[in-house]
Amino acid sequence: MLIDDLRAVLPEDRIVLDPDVLTGYAHDEAEWAPHGEPAVVVRPRTAQDVQAVVRECVKHRVPLVPRGAGTGLSGGANAVAGCVVLVTDRMTAVREINPVERLAVVEPGVVNDDLRAACAEQGLWYPPDPASSPWSTIGGNVATNAGGVCCVKYGVTRDYVLGLQVVTGTGELVRLGRRTAKGVAGYDLAGLMVGSEGTLGVITEITVRLRAQRAPESTVAGYFDSTVAAGEAAAAIRAAGIVPSALELVDRHCLAAVDAWKNMGLSSDADVVLLGRSDAPGAAGEHEAAAMLECFEQAGASWAAQSSDQTEADALFAARRLAYPALERLGPVLTEDVCVPTHLVPEMLARIDLAAKRHDTQIANIAHIGDGNLHPLLITPVGDEPARRRAQAAFDDIVADALALGGTVTGEHGVGLLKQPGLVRELGPAVLAMHHAVKNALDPHGILNPGKVVQEPVE
Amino acid sequence: MLIDDLRAVLPEDRIVLDPDVLTGYAHDEAEWAPHGEPAVVVRPRTAQDVQAVVRECVKHRVPLVPRGAGTGLSGGANAVAGCVVLVTDRMTAVREINPVERLAVVEPGVVNDDLRAACAEQGLWYPPDPASSPWSTIGGNVATNAGGVCCVKYGVTRDYVLGLQVVTGTGELVRLGRRTAKGVAGYDLAGLMVGSEGTLGVITEITVRLRAQRAPESTVAGYFDSTVAAGEAAAAIRAAGIVPSALELVDRHCLAAVDAWKNMGLSSDADVVLLGRSDAPGAAGEHEAAAMLECFEQAGASWAAQSSDQTEADALFAARRLAYPALERLGPVLTEDVCVPTHLVPEMLARIDLAAKRHDTQIANIAHIGDGNLHPLLITPVGDEPARRRAQAAFDDIVADALALGGTVTGEHGVGLLKQPGLVRELGPAVLAMHHAVKNALDPHGILNPGKVVQEPVE
Repeated sequence: MLIDDLRAVLPEDRIVLDPDVLTGYAHDEAEWAPHGEPAVVVRPRTAQDVQAVVRECVKHRVPLVPRGAGTGLSGGANAVAGCVVLVTDRMTAVREINPVERLAVVEPGVVNDDLRAACAEQGLWYPPDPASSPWSTIGGNVATNAGGVCCVKYGVTRDYVLGLQVVTGTGELVRLGRRTAKGVAGYDLAGLMVGSEGTLGVITEITVRLRAQRAPESTVAGYFDSTVAAGEAAAAIRAAGIVPSALELVDRHCLAAVDAWKNMGLSSDADVVLLGRSDAPGAAGEHEAAAMLECFEQAGASWAAQSSDQTEADALFAARRLAYPALERLGPVLTEDVCVPTHLVPEMLARIDLAAKRHDTQIANIAHIGDGNLHPLLITPVGDEPARRRAQAAFDDIVADALALGGTVTGEHGVGLLKQPGLVRELGPAVLAMHHAVKNALDPHGILNPGKVVQEPVE
Repeated sequence: MLIDDLRAVLPEDRIVLDPDVLTGYAHDEAEWAPHGEPAVVVRPRTAQDVQAVVRECVKHRVPLVPRGAGTGLSGGANAVAGCVVLVTDRMTAVREINPVERLAVVEPGVVNDDLRAACAEQGLWYPPDPASSPWSTIGGNVATNAGGVCCVKYGVTRDYVLGLQVVTGTGELVRLGRRTAKGVAGYDLAGLMVGSEGTLGVITEITVRLRAQRAPESTVAGYFDSTVAAGEAAAAIRAAGIVPSALELVDRHCLAAVDAWKNMGLSSDADVVLLGRSDAPGAAGEHEAAAMLECFEQAGASWAAQSSDQTEADALFAARRLAYPALERLGPVLTEDVCVPTHLVPEMLARIDLAAKRHDTQIANIAHIGDGNLHPLLITPVGDEPARRRAQAAFDDIVADALALGGTVTGEHGVGLLKQPGLVRELGPAVLAMHHAVKNALDPHGILNPGKVVQEPVE
């Protein structure tokens, strides 16, 4: 009946029922998060297609799970049993890149790197750069408020979303936000949609703010004997008032895994590599790079240097980007995404080491350390159930430690399913009640990605 | 009964009943907006005081109108008859200025310039700088998402709000947002509060992001024969990819009014003055200033020069800041706040001139022209009712023109009461319905500044 009705309102090529294909759209990259099997996958081409799907879901009271490329790490795109999965992979038009207004208008299925490339052709830059940028979509980036390497200087996806076209929980196609540089006409509903993981509306078009292309970056690399020492270098950079264009930590577990996969010749003597970048133009960039180098050395780097070789610098950043898929080859990876005040980064890294020892769990570390956003990656051998339970206990301890230090359970990956217990602890009952009130207000039929971000309250 | 109950839960000094004092708190600076007389003014000292007031308002179903310094220009702080006006002028503590985390924590009644001065002592900078900064409060700035001169490069108040402590519409005292650099734990309810004009919660504490102090600015001034020519210079600057740290337009009506008031020796031959600034450090700043000068000259400036005299440059910016109160001395001022795409600024300025002629109304212009945010100021002689009606007609035409050009009715002043007819046209019924749903979800008893931003729907 739902399927028949979808067939009545959509061209046949929009509808996928092949069970093997459905299985492929049943979950995102959060291997630890549960998922059901969708009843149908729809692949709309237009906003009107999306609106038609939402209206059928309202009519049949069937859950709708929107997804982009499925690179999420929290289970936010995981299917609910019997749901409609709406995939945006056919909505890939870059509608406008406007160098005078410095904005772009795109459909949600545009891949992040494709937008960045299209902007670069006109001397423009779309900064948000999650590690998934070769695969993840702008729609998914907006739905999760994705971060990335450049956030430490340039902010997150929310900072670049000017306007959205959205299908609401009641099936209306609306425009939120604006195209102008400023605007305060009513509540910031576009901003509310950003990071709401498809639970408040389905995004059909996005207007993003752009910047002018920046100066080439200088890179500084340092080797450290421990994550904590590297954390102290990062804290020193912050305390010195330096705002690097990137400040990333990668440990030897990650480097080894990338090397084993891609054979990039990265194996090093270092336990931890810290990568800093400056994009300040001219002499200011040299000055910033030199100041970072000094912070590295004073924090006890065993080796540190400004990279004169762009290829080498790019390889180190590529390794950072590939760390997650490289580790996934070794077994199911449970990804943390805690974010703490920057001066507490060394303390948090020490606590992560303790959690690893306490629960006999291998934890690799990558981190947007300049933001205090840490990604301990908990690795378990395939099929080892006791190891899995230990990893879950370590995960819970790390969440508790981050909250105890005034941090958050999720800096950039989103709540999805995996971070919900932590979210409940972080927000408390009164703020959770506000979430439920907003969710019910904008999705009165409860069809939009139900069970994500906030569970329905048990009445 | 309400008063008795307030007396039971608040110290006596928090409660003001003197009718003359009440009248002084009955409205903001939007002289054209209607207002009622409050039943009582409360001046809380703590978040607990605020919570007690909200709870009494819930219990008695009495409207609560929060206000800061009352410098708003849209009627957002205007009293509803019989309401409680909650003034934050005794909540003025700067709780923390943290140079390492680059954030400040303040009570809502802290005056913008006071926060900026406190930050400057530690080499830090809070960018949002509305023209009202010597008087307006951070709480009011957050409630209206205030803009200012620096927005063209550094964004608006929303871009600096990390976290809020708020009393909700059900009387809960909650924390929204965060202290960390990044965070996506749940819906962006802190962002939703920004610009909601006290209709979704009462702000009791604000955590703002700070920047490092910037380089001294270079100033370029140009004289033009018309606002349209000045608008073309601004569009040329944008098209050249320059991002000035300020780009302001002031016309001769404003300069003359300021001069008549403050005797600053500003009277000039120019019809319109354009002021550009660059805060790029060192040679980059010189380069930017020179490039702006070239844009001024090519757009037909009758005179243009880089100011070598900091005192003179500061005087011009002070005049811009004083334009509004100076004009108010001449009669009731009706302030527009339209914002249009930047390449349409010359067209919009031409339409403003036409509206002035069509309706025989004096219109002075100031503008954050680099953002496309224009403030035509409609001036009417005191007590001249026909002139008032003509000004209202010109106001309505300008709003219609801005919407026709893809702009918004309010760039930074907020909706309050004055912009509601325009808001209804701008948003349309489906988006207005979303506003009502959110309002009802977070203010289920309808006590928080009712009638502002969105009118209650007529059932």
